[in-house]
Amino acid sequence: MVVIMKAGASEEQIEAVASHIEDRGVKIRRIVGEYQSILGIVGDVAPLVAEREQLERLDGVESIVRISKPFKLASREFNPVDTIVSVNGVSIGGKEIVVMAGPCSVESREQVVETAKAVKAAGAKILRGGAYKPRTSPYSFQGMGEEGLRILAEAREITGLPVITEVMDQQMLPIILEYADILQIGARNMQNYTLLRAVGETGHPVLLKRGMMSTLEEMLMSAEYILACGNERVMLCERGIRTFEPYTRNTLDISAVPVLKELSHLPVIVDPSHATGRWNLVAPVTRAAVSAGVDGLIVEVHPQPAKALSDGAQSLTFSNFSEMMTSLPVVAAAVGRRIG
Amino acid sequence: MVVIMKAGASEEQIEAVASHIEDRGVKIRRIVGEYQSILGIVGDVAPLVAEREQLERLDGVESIVRISKPFKLASREFNPVDTIVSVNGVSIGGKEIVVMAGPCSVESREQVVETAKAVKAAGAKILRGGAYKPRTSPYSFQGMGEEGLRILAEAREITGLPVITEVMDQQMLPIILEYADILQIGARNMQNYTLLRAVGETGHPVLLKRGMMSTLEEMLMSAEYILACGNERVMLCERGIRTFEPYTRNTLDISAVPVLKELSHLPVIVDPSHATGRWNLVAPVTRAAVSAGVDGLIVEVHPQPAKALSDGAQSLTFSNFSEMMTSLPVVAAAVGRRIG
Amino acid sequence: MVVIMKAGASEEQIEAVASHIEDRGVKIRRIVGEYQSILGIVGDVAPLVAEREQLERLDGVESIVRISKPFKLASREFNPVDTIVSVNGVSIGGKEIVVMAGPCSVESREQVVETAKAVKAAGAKILRGGAYKPRTSPYSFQGMGEEGLRILAEAREITGLPVITEVMDQQMLPIILEYADILQIGARNMQNYTLLRAVGETGHPVLLKRGMMSTLEEMLMSAEYILACGNERVMLCERGIRTFEPYTRNTLDISAVPVLKELSHLPVIVDPSHATGRWNLVAPVTRAAVSAGVDGLIVEVHPQPAKALSDGAQSLTFSNFSEMMTSLPVVAAAVGRRIG
Amino acid sequence: MVVIMKAGASEEQIEAVASHIEDRGVKIRRIVGEYQSILGIVGDVAPLVAEREQLERLDGVESIVRISKPFKLASREFNPVDTIVSVNGVSIGGKEIVVMAGPCSVESREQVVETAKAVKAAGAKILRGGAYKPRTSPYSFQGMGEEGLRILAEAREITGLPVITEVMDQQMLPIILEYADILQIGARNMQNYTLLRAVGETGHPVLLKRGMMSTLEEMLMSAEYILACGNERVMLCERGIRTFEPYTRNTLDISAVPVLKELSHLPVIVDPSHATGRWNLVAPVTRAAVSAGVDGLIVEVHPQPAKALSDGAQSLTFSNFSEMMTSLPVVAAAVGRRIG
Repeated sequence: MVVIMKAGASEEQIEAVASHIEDRGVKIRRIVGEYQSILGIVGDVAPLVAEREQLERLDGVESIVRISKPFKLASREFNPVDTIVSVNGVSIGGKEIVVMAGPCSVESREQVVETAKAVKAAGAKILRGGAYKPRTSPYSFQGMGEEGLRILAEAREITGLPVITEVMDQQMLPIILEYADILQIGARNMQNYTLLRAVGETGHPVLLKRGMMSTLEEMLMSAEYILACGNERVMLCERGIRTFEPYTRNTLDISAVPVLKELSHLPVIVDPSHATGRWNLVAPVTRAAVSAGVDGLIVEVHPQPAKALSDGAQSLTFSNFSEMMTSLPVVAAAVGRRIG
Repeated sequence: MVVIMKAGASEEQIEAVASHIEDRGVKIRRIVGEYQSILGIVGDVAPLVAEREQLERLDGVESIVRISKPFKLASREFNPVDTIVSVNGVSIGGKEIVVMAGPCSVESREQVVETAKAVKAAGAKILRGGAYKPRTSPYSFQGMGEEGLRILAEAREITGLPVITEVMDQQMLPIILEYADILQIGARNMQNYTLLRAVGETGHPVLLKRGMMSTLEEMLMSAEYILACGNERVMLCERGIRTFEPYTRNTLDISAVPVLKELSHLPVIVDPSHATGRWNLVAPVTRAAVSAGVDGLIVEVHPQPAKALSDGAQSLTFSNFSEMMTSLPVVAAAVGRRIG
Repeated sequence: MVVIMKAGASEEQIEAVASHIEDRGVKIRRIVGEYQSILGIVGDVAPLVAEREQLERLDGVESIVRISKPFKLASREFNPVDTIVSVNGVSIGGKEIVVMAGPCSVESREQVVETAKAVKAAGAKILRGGAYKPRTSPYSFQGMGEEGLRILAEAREITGLPVITEVMDQQMLPIILEYADILQIGARNMQNYTLLRAVGETGHPVLLKRGMMSTLEEMLMSAEYILACGNERVMLCERGIRTFEPYTRNTLDISAVPVLKELSHLPVIVDPSHATGRWNLVAPVTRAAVSAGVDGLIVEVHPQPAKALSDGAQSLTFSNFSEMMTSLPVVAAAVGRRIG
Repeated sequence: MVVIMKAGASEEQIEAVASHIEDRGVKIRRIVGEYQSILGIVGDVAPLVAEREQLERLDGVESIVRISKPFKLASREFNPVDTIVSVNGVSIGGKEIVVMAGPCSVESREQVVETAKAVKAAGAKILRGGAYKPRTSPYSFQGMGEEGLRILAEAREITGLPVITEVMDQQMLPIILEYADILQIGARNMQNYTLLRAVGETGHPVLLKRGMMSTLEEMLMSAEYILACGNERVMLCERGIRTFEPYTRNTLDISAVPVLKELSHLPVIVDPSHATGRWNLVAPVTRAAVSAGVDGLIVEVHPQPAKALSDGAQSLTFSNFSEMMTSLPVVAAAVGRRIG
């Protein structure tokens, strides 16, 4: 941590800042410049990081420069080895790229079972489906609730595919834990800290979606909440960020894939369906994600997208999905990976 | 609602779309253009709005244009008269502009009581203070919890100022209801629908902050969740949105003030502290908000910002605040308002 | 300037970086931390600033922290006194707030003369109007060209109002200099460095509009180009930035007003018409800008906005404008200013 | 084009709007809804598109919905066959993906010749290099100018690689045409319409970079300017857009690749160097672009990035570049393409 003093800071101000900081048990190294002085802080700065805003208010201080990263458990430095999250025999984070697929919302037993069979046949390893849906409008379909969870569990029994489903708040966590293999934290809840702590305490696998206007650092800080509760089974999911470009629903931040792999040991997943919002862009964007180094994909598939109760515009049909899956192994092989 | 058919859509496709839509009990008026056909939908389109994405997937459809607004109870059309939210004798939404002020976080009894007295003396009508704090880092100060609520209540008893404090999840709602006069929904929770419904059912006054990534329409849809639960005591708070500009913490969307007043009957509040993130910008931005037509302001004030456990950089000292308050009545008068 | 070395940087790497930097004639002060070393640079770092990217590529370097601002002539430190730009007897940057008004495009002699008279009567001091128009589409009206300039000059003769008009490239600069009193650099040209240098060499007053996705620092750097050519008559114009919010054409960054006044000595202008894109938002946003501390305003006015060849949606009618102008003196007075 | 009338629009207003529009020689089809009327416009709406803003100002009009795309010559509908741009024997837009590589700035004869040989050996087909550099700061290195162009031409003579270089304004166009095989329009100049028209009249191949703040539609409109001047040799280049994410220099909009291929017949190029700003992200992002369907790549390579006068942080060394190139053929093959 480095404290930059203002050009005109007085000697008294500099000393006051220095002694304020040394009171926290760290040491100061001072650099006297021609115009400005700089105070370098040596020692364990962790307690000071949280006080950064206070330091910036001290008289004569121009700014504070943080050097170390604010996340620890999520960092590659802390754990240089790739984390592999295992879910009922499926491993995410290793050489194999795992595809999760299924409908946006659970709408009926038939729809889910049919989809589960189709995506399994095409090579998916995990079944996705929402029983509780966060919707912008209170008047939109809000999901089938527990009945939806039972349907997902039945589809799992039939196909053997583990199930991922969204948990919207900590109150519904117990019921979801009865049915789900992976807990999904949606983009709107990425900074719902109560929920992050709650899933952190379950030890259950978690897929954490990036908020649509969250930085990668903020996403890693949210993962840190879960990890700090003792749950190491966390996957990071890039699903597009909000920008000024209106053609796509969101803008997929493809660089996020190599950046997250560099900064963190956690598996990285991409959701091409929400990122683009258009089914015909899903296949090229999925191939791009594979080439960029993802560990997994989560894709929306529906028997009849035109009748889907949500996200119809971005859902693949069975044949779209199957065709896309056929194209993936050779792309994966080109970057030294396999489709799981 | 208008359905735009693709340039090459066949007669069969157009008829299929038309009959699909008429099955919902509405009528179709068809316009045959030189290149494209258009289907105008006449009647109650509400059930169709939620199906928009499905319609876009029908063969031959290019796009769907929504005409009516997706929010109803929050709209000015539904209620042309300004809503006035009354809180223990303080009215928000009328001719008087109400100032809420206090520390970001409750840190001690002395800090809160001292601040409450100072902001009351300067003209504030409501005391703000966070007992539970959403923090990006799990290692930052997370708030004093119930002890903090008790301190706020004590400050209310001493000064008579009603209290506004943030509720982060529905589980802490009962305890917060025991102490708070106004429930604050933070920016990160603007689309936490579980929480919106929960506060909707309390009938308690709610200040809903705009998400840093949310459009005004999405904000009004979130207000709609609360209103749809029967709670009409909702205030909308613009607190800055996330942009590419790094100098300020967020970018205050000043146009949001007249836009929200035009689209909705609900009171509009501005938070200049979070919007700017810099205490020296708070006064000019506050005066701008008053001129733009706000109904209220929520400002961070701290006895010693340099020692604040959160948001020190953007907090006003007592004298900063008092000086700013002195400047407001004449600005308010210039636009036909009074400082409450 | 501070160089942060990587946690694992070797002694050889640190020395290599230090000697690389000292070769530039500055001195190094080294701080050895527990995890990382820091090199503070003492002396004239100006030549190093331009090399920042190279320094970041040196082995063992984690990042470079710039301390001093990259603009100099535009900075408040360089010139603590407010610059006043005088244009044919009108002073911008002093106690009086100057209003520039007129149509987006020059369309006819009658339209411009009529508008010039109307805005003068309402209190405007400068006439705006575009003779050359940058349009997104090659098929849109591109302006009347020199004929338009002659019309503006005629309106000036009749009303006495100095004229501001946009210069799109350096080739049209000579002809525009024959007619215009103030050269306007449009948002799309904020980083057209050839043009910036060309207007810099004229010594003519310049209104520099912020690019719709430019930071305030980048804007000040563009002003620096003009100032560095010896032209000190530069005005900075905030005209809204591009964000994700679709309701308004752009998002007015109201905080830019006090920020620019703090960082620079140059006059600050706000364009509420382009910022909002909606005529009914122009008056409240203008009042907000006045309260925030602007030195001038540039507003679109048209005799019949519904027939305007460009920007009709955001143009005020004569009576809208006159009504708005009537409301400004008291707002200006509330912040210690006058309408010029 | 569809005109949506306000809910309360009177019969007179509707008729006035209808007759205003029919005066332009098109026909109106009116749909009377329960709440609102809609006017569908039948016939050639092209002249009306440019008047959209005026129409929105007519009394009683709520909004105008454009149906047809605003670009024509650039559209896939206009020309369903992929355009292939040929440059001295190199074809861009066909089955082969073309790699352009070289330094950001021309710094010396040795640097450019050495780099040209190295990138040719690794498989690049075109040499890039800037002789005139747009720089945010007037104090940064601004390029070698014509001397730089001569060096590029010499490198072309030695290696046979055609040369692409940036043209910043129309005045430098003649000199650049003497040396360059492809004219590059930089991101800051994407809406410099004077320059677009000037290069449009040359008939020379043009690489048009997306503005960092520009939508895909705006980019296609800028291409339309060049095409409308009779120059069909236009390539579109995605180079990252500006977002709130600070880790990368820009955010590469990977979806832009399939979207542009869908909307337009022009070749699509990706610039992974400017998009990421970090050399170690260039290879994964390049592979992603290949998988997403690009026709070409433009990559910064420097003999010693740490000594580069610009963009050192994002430049590849010869061995980085060579290693990346080795990985591309198999990725290209996976999507049915070849590296040219």
